[in-house]
Amino acid sequence: MAAEDPGFYMFGPYQVYKEEVFYTTDLCFVMVNLRPVLPGHVLVCPKRIVKRFTDLTPEEVSDIWLTAHKVADKLELHYKGTSLTFTIQDGPEAGQSVPHVHVHIVPRKKGDFENNDEIYDAIDENETKLKKKLDLDKNRRDRSLEERTQEADELRALFI
Amino acid sequence: MAAEDPGFYMFGPYQVYKEEVFYTTDLCFVMVNLRPVLPGHVLVCPKRIVKRFTDLTPEEVSDIWLTAHKVADKLELHYKGTSLTFTIQDGPEAGQSVPHVHVHIVPRKKGDFENNDEIYDAIDENETKLKKKLDLDKNRRDRSLEERTQEADELRALFI
Repeated sequence: MAAEDPGFYMFGPYQVYKEEVFYTTDLCFVMVNLRPVLPGHVLVCPKRIVKRFTDLTPEEVSDIWLTAHKVADKLELHYKGTSLTFTIQDGPEAGQSVPHVHVHIVPRKKGDFENNDEIYDAIDENETKLKKKLDLDKNRRDRSLEERTQEADELRALFI
Repeated sequence: MAAEDPGFYMFGPYQVYKEEVFYTTDLCFVMVNLRPVLPGHVLVCPKRIVKRFTDLTPEEVSDIWLTAHKVADKLELHYKGTSLTFTIQDGPEAGQSVPHVHVHIVPRKKGDFENNDEIYDAIDENETKLKKKLDLDKNRRDRSLEERTQEADELRALFI
């Protein structure tokens, strides 16, 4: 008998609603962000909760990055980006705040940060450390479940 | 008859000496950096010159990230890091300066940026744009071929 579906994914110690997830494989899931640094900032996570990139199996490494590869194209197009930032903050000294491997994908466009005061505010909080400047995990405004669900619905439709 | 070995790798329009490369597969190579942001900052590149991450074949995506996975552990240990930053600046609006896909791997440790004035100088040049702050490709002091060769020799020995 198959295990009962718990109805959510785990991201470190946090429950992620299925409504926030727009793409899955056997080994990973892709979710919209509670606190995106820019529109279209999503996270690719292994289903298995492991902290560090080197804790992943080779199968998980391939699966996560083939998924990032598959998602990236559609994400850039959907958000009218012209470039993409891919980052793993692997460990606390690299800015990781949730102890569960995750790939940040952020669609980028010319001048994107100049039009986003929230991001400047977030950056200015800790101007003296590049660690903080590079930190894509830091606190930002939480979006509501409704906002996250709506975005995930939009993105899920790209893969049907 | 096999093609003649040109004796170097191409990184976009630039020739990379074999002496600067410390790990290779059929599809990619890993080189030390001309202008590292921190000790142990290396680049994983596909042998095929393609600009964007989505230009890679699935085989190249897997190979590059399995290589990053393999190299990362030894790199962190060798440079006494406690975390790692992995980044692809995919396209000019994400800070890419050399039009050839490359994964940055940077060993990190507590307070690493506070002990490195050069990095602060590099960051301070363009304080007004996060794009610039996130830019791991920007100009820094060029290291000599001798310095790069010495580091690559050290790292190559870890994989024998």
